[in-house]
Amino acid sequence: MELKEKQVDSELIYKGKIIDVYKDKVSLPDGTITYREYIKHCKASCVLAKLPNGKFLIEKQFRYPYQEVIYEFPAGKCDKNEDPINTASRELEEETGYKANKVTYLGKMYPTCAYTDEVIYLYFAEDLVKTSQNLDENENVEVLEMSKEEILNLVRSGELKDAKSLCILTLIQNSDLKEKL
Amino acid sequence: MELKEKQVDSELIYKGKIIDVYKDKVSLPDGTITYREYIKHCKASCVLAKLPNGKFLIEKQFRYPYQEVIYEFPAGKCDKNEDPINTASRELEEETGYKANKVTYLGKMYPTCAYTDEVIYLYFAEDLVKTSQNLDENENVEVLEMSKEEILNLVRSGELKDAKSLCILTLIQNSDLKEKL
Repeated sequence: MELKEKQVDSELIYKGKIIDVYKDKVSLPDGTITYREYIKHCKASCVLAKLPNGKFLIEKQFRYPYQEVIYEFPAGKCDKNEDPINTASRELEEETGYKANKVTYLGKMYPTCAYTDEVIYLYFAEDLVKTSQNLDENENVEVLEMSKEEILNLVRSGELKDAKSLCILTLIQNSDLKEKL
Repeated sequence: MELKEKQVDSELIYKGKIIDVYKDKVSLPDGTITYREYIKHCKASCVLAKLPNGKFLIEKQFRYPYQEVIYEFPAGKCDKNEDPINTASRELEEETGYKANKVTYLGKMYPTCAYTDEVIYLYFAEDLVKTSQNLDENENVEVLEMSKEEILNLVRSGELKDAKSLCILTLIQNSDLKEKL
């Protein structure tokens, strides 16, 4: 079955600081012409990090679009040309003050495939050593330590809603690393 | 720790068909003024549906922002004032031609919390009865049946990247419904 849609024209609607908005004219498999609105966004990384005490690092952060403080694993945008595994290590250290000596790739995810091209790379970090937190300007993050059971309770209660964090749990629970959770 | 950011001003940058783009002036907890760019999008639902033969319905769909055919569980946008559980049933039947007699809420997820306000509601559907597919205009979807093992193999191989679909798996695997997967 032919599913591919072909670009006919592309219009940059808005060039922002973290998002660029496009409206493309596209040709569907049957030749119909329609439009696709979408966001271009840089890559990002997210990391589940296990402390020597067996707990995991999790953050509370106010997310403006939802007007809500939500739970998330440490994450951030890739700098230009930065390998996502380095982003994971860098963001973990900047946000939590822990350097990871071992970082393992779990997989990647597409947050909302209809209207963004963002790819979030997901990692597991261990062998952590305390260094110091170094938050970006305008970044306010509360860092907590939680056991596996506490995190799974947040899943069961509906309090963990962040997609990248839920996806990390799917990937680790269905991988060879599941005993590490 | 005070994390909340307060709106000072809000500017509608682009009013689109499926996304509206805003740039808000906001006050951070320490009083600093900054800007937040984000998308307003309607609610959506996604559903993991189990057939009488024990297999699950999964779709292949071309997603324009990624220029790629990806695997996803049936999903769609909520109509105005539509309860997300009804969206789940409606989209399941429209896209796959199966009506579900039992639909159970699993939880909700925030796809990419920094720049969209979209909430995706996640469901498990069973007691399916064959009716007929009725796709939206401009919607091209290939519907497949897969066993649990085939789906988990897509997770392990990295071929299942869609966030809402991965999140459904986390939620069901950590719920009382886990035996149904």
